[in-house]
Amino acid sequence: MHARKRIEIVVEAVRAEAVTALLDRLGATGWTVLPVLAGRGRQGIRRAGDPGGVDDNVIVLCIASEAVAERIMGAQAELLGARPAIVSITECQVLRADHF
Amino acid sequence: MHARKRIEIVVEAVRAEAVTALLDRLGATGWTVLPVLAGRGRQGIRRAGDPGGVDDNVIVLCIASEAVAERIMGAQAELLGARPAIVSITECQVLRADHF
Amino acid sequence: MHARKRIEIVVEAVRAEAVTALLDRLGATGWTVLPVLAGRGRQGIRRAGDPGGVDDNVIVLCIASEAVAERIMGAQAELLGARPAIVSITECQVLRADHF
Repeated sequence: MHARKRIEIVVEAVRAEAVTALLDRLGATGWTVLPVLAGRGRQGIRRAGDPGGVDDNVIVLCIASEAVAERIMGAQAELLGARPAIVSITECQVLRADHF
Repeated sequence: MHARKRIEIVVEAVRAEAVTALLDRLGATGWTVLPVLAGRGRQGIRRAGDPGGVDDNVIVLCIASEAVAERIMGAQAELLGARPAIVSITECQVLRADHF
Repeated sequence: MHARKRIEIVVEAVRAEAVTALLDRLGATGWTVLPVLAGRGRQGIRRAGDPGGVDDNVIVLCIASEAVAERIMGAQAELLGARPAIVSITECQVLRADHF
């Protein structure tokens, strides 16, 4: 097993592509986008399924090497430009080192 | 980066509001609800999409300060009253301390 | 609280059952399957909702004891036979020891 960083970003669906493009540019080897049903944050409660879908959030999940994770955190201004609700990082272990 | 707790609760969709109301009351600054497609637990296999949706599970995700996380764990009786399938906590780091 | 392993596996929806059957056989007491909207990996970008759904990914989440987690990692050849995109493991704490 190999140590990596698990980066989890809750962001508006319409801004998710800004986040994944940043991850791509900073060397992430991949990412996964998950749907969100509802959430409460600083801007009150949001629920998925409103007519325009403009309020929908998603979660962008990225497993990255420490070097790439540091680059992502270093690009904080740009990352926060996509106005994520949450950016959290967890230590994890992965099965195959060559994939990240 | 700032240390926080990532709390993940798998619970029946119909009981999710009891969980998020508890999180609100105990001082959580936000939470996110994710859909679940299927699961196996102590009560056998469940799949989303059954007619009444009564068997659907969701995941309630909450990033909290240590103080709030301790309060949530301290309210164990009330939390377990919503009959969650799983309550797990992971250490994480967040980008902005003022959001949690 | 009790220490456990949180195993997260991103895998094609059509192969998820091979993964959950393996988890069952190795002693996991449960698992949860989450939908995925989109992802980028070694094979390029995938989006959910294509006609046949053959490209859809899901996430299989499993909270396991250290013994079961070791057995799962030990069955690497079989696990990788389901061609997961990602297998990552995180340390977590659970509320009820008897459930895992």
